[in-house]
Amino acid sequence: MFAPVYLDHNATTPLAPAVLEAMLPWLSGQFGNPSSRHEYGRAARRAIDEARQQVAAAVGAHPTEVVFTSGGSEANNLFLKRAAACLRPSVLAVSAVEHPCVVKPAEQLVRQGWQLRKLAVDGEGRVDAEAYRCVLQDKPQLLSVMGANNETGVLQDVATLAEAARAGGGWFHSDAVQMLGKLPLSFRELNTAGVHALTVSAHKIGGPKGAAALILDKRVELAPLIAGGGHERGLRSGTENVPAIVGFGVAASLAVARVADCGVQMAALRAQLELGLVALGARIFGAAASRLPNTSYFAMPQLDGETLVGKLDRAGFAVASGAACSSANPEPSHVLAAMGVAPDVARGAVRVSLGRETTAAQIEDFLNVLQATVVGLQQMTAMKLDAA
Amino acid sequence: MFAPVYLDHNATTPLAPAVLEAMLPWLSGQFGNPSSRHEYGRAARRAIDEARQQVAAAVGAHPTEVVFTSGGSEANNLFLKRAAACLRPSVLAVSAVEHPCVVKPAEQLVRQGWQLRKLAVDGEGRVDAEAYRCVLQDKPQLLSVMGANNETGVLQDVATLAEAARAGGGWFHSDAVQMLGKLPLSFRELNTAGVHALTVSAHKIGGPKGAAALILDKRVELAPLIAGGGHERGLRSGTENVPAIVGFGVAASLAVARVADCGVQMAALRAQLELGLVALGARIFGAAASRLPNTSYFAMPQLDGETLVGKLDRAGFAVASGAACSSANPEPSHVLAAMGVAPDVARGAVRVSLGRETTAAQIEDFLNVLQATVVGLQQMTAMKLDAA
Repeated sequence: MFAPVYLDHNATTPLAPAVLEAMLPWLSGQFGNPSSRHEYGRAARRAIDEARQQVAAAVGAHPTEVVFTSGGSEANNLFLKRAAACLRPSVLAVSAVEHPCVVKPAEQLVRQGWQLRKLAVDGEGRVDAEAYRCVLQDKPQLLSVMGANNETGVLQDVATLAEAARAGGGWFHSDAVQMLGKLPLSFRELNTAGVHALTVSAHKIGGPKGAAALILDKRVELAPLIAGGGHERGLRSGTENVPAIVGFGVAASLAVARVADCGVQMAALRAQLELGLVALGARIFGAAASRLPNTSYFAMPQLDGETLVGKLDRAGFAVASGAACSSANPEPSHVLAAMGVAPDVARGAVRVSLGRETTAAQIEDFLNVLQATVVGLQQMTAMKLDAA
Repeated sequence: MFAPVYLDHNATTPLAPAVLEAMLPWLSGQFGNPSSRHEYGRAARRAIDEARQQVAAAVGAHPTEVVFTSGGSEANNLFLKRAAACLRPSVLAVSAVEHPCVVKPAEQLVRQGWQLRKLAVDGEGRVDAEAYRCVLQDKPQLLSVMGANNETGVLQDVATLAEAARAGGGWFHSDAVQMLGKLPLSFRELNTAGVHALTVSAHKIGGPKGAAALILDKRVELAPLIAGGGHERGLRSGTENVPAIVGFGVAASLAVARVADCGVQMAALRAQLELGLVALGARIFGAAASRLPNTSYFAMPQLDGETLVGKLDRAGFAVASGAACSSANPEPSHVLAAMGVAPDVARGAVRVSLGRETTAAQIEDFLNVLQATVVGLQQMTAMKLDAA
């Protein structure tokens, strides 16, 4: 089987073998509906209860604070739209570098009378402290700032931002799908600082697609996005995706058990990668900020990111030219635009995101192939310029 | 392994072995994000395209009319709430026997200014023609009537109802999750009659939990319930659950290929079952109506349904006392209430729903165990009455 080197772990991750093994019984003999009052149903309910405990333990929350959803996008939409549904429309603040599944629901709320403030970021992608203080004067009733950016890997100081927002009395949410498994994450600590909700997702941490969670302070009033049979304490109806939820539980336990080792290992590999990138003349976005240990987002002078990603793909390396979810849309990244990166530089952006299974040999191979590709493309560009 | 006889197929179904086989590659080496522009991503995109064609072919629709969601509840919420979001609030009509995931979103819309008309049903559970004509005079702009009821199996004449509603210009939706795989289903034919949207779900037809679809006439304007990266033509954002969608495609193909044979087989088994039930003195709900061939919903005189289900479970037979999704709520069924069944009779309701793998020997065993259980419970009841 053709198996290119996978360096796109921020888009999605391979299922850990132990996760698949845990899921398989729930994809065969143990197929019950957790709401059913017979042995098949009870077994499924017990499995979900266990997964809820595993996810809760992994994120430092209580099991009753875990609301399972079908994915991170659903969890973010659930929080923003359905907390808004329980409030009088006022001011809503989200950072300018949020994922589209935070930006778009926030924009939908504008049509319902909410005033949206996008929090400006500095050149490294961090929420600008001065601009933030200004927005807080408007007392936003809903705030959402991601833990780590999916494109740059740049971290926000969510606890400090939440603490500053506290006096305003708003609900503070953080999309942490890129944080979990890469850095320590504690809802209890964040909650103490003033964070009321976190989004985490299975398929970013070696778990399956189809399961995620909103970790929710129970003081937050929320109407369901998907109403019906009253599952998930009435907050999310629909037959639970038992195999995916079971897989999420195991993946969360594994990810957290390995987070310290993985962090060290990935940071070392990323340093090796970026040393090579800089030697090739790359500009690395957000390099001066605290970042996820696995993410490197860069541009090579004069080269188009899409073209480079295509060449690398054919050479056996799977990397991204931008956030996977918006790859259908070849506009320059809104994250880089918010960081003040010029569109012609932003069009060169390439993201490499490492995983647990990435090796130093793969990074070395990648750098060699990248060098050859860059030289080839630059020669072509030079020839075109000469001919013109 | 303890494996009771499973007679609860309207709650959920075992995964067909061919479905699991088709899913497995997407749970191991083929783990890409379909939005990624590298080989892993393209392979996942092709798999989703193929599944979309399979589901479209199975329901007689065009692939571009298939909007994948995480489940039937999401699809029903998506249609009702997000078609409503594109309309001026007016009148909305849903049948009195709809699943909670239609009833609850309809009730949520009332808070947004919609007037909800619940369509009365007759004693057999069919939408009452006279009452329907009355409601149509109010020109409902949104209508939802299920194809087959999950509790009774009673069929609605959706095409005729939709045709009658046409002059009013509203959007007509039908929850068909219980129809697919049990009876022939053609969106093209229904669409010609005036049905604009159908909900179908994988886990009711031998497919996995976590995948369903809204089959949607493209003239219907719909805002996304889950907004973000713009997946599913902008109607449903979030990384696609590739393994579940692949499984859905295969399950839909299989279910439709077998629908005629299965129908005949299940009708024969159900006849055997109901002959035995009537001999034991059971009242069968909706017996005079056209029903799904696999569903039997009945009550034994003087016996509580929950108690009976518990006894049958311990004796090795998995059946339901009501809709699985609302089993957490031991109130008498709203479906039976709408049919005019007295609460004390409705409390006795037990649902047996057969599957492809159900055998005549299992039905015979079930009837024997039921008889013994009923006699035992009736003797206990008689003793209590004597003692009182």
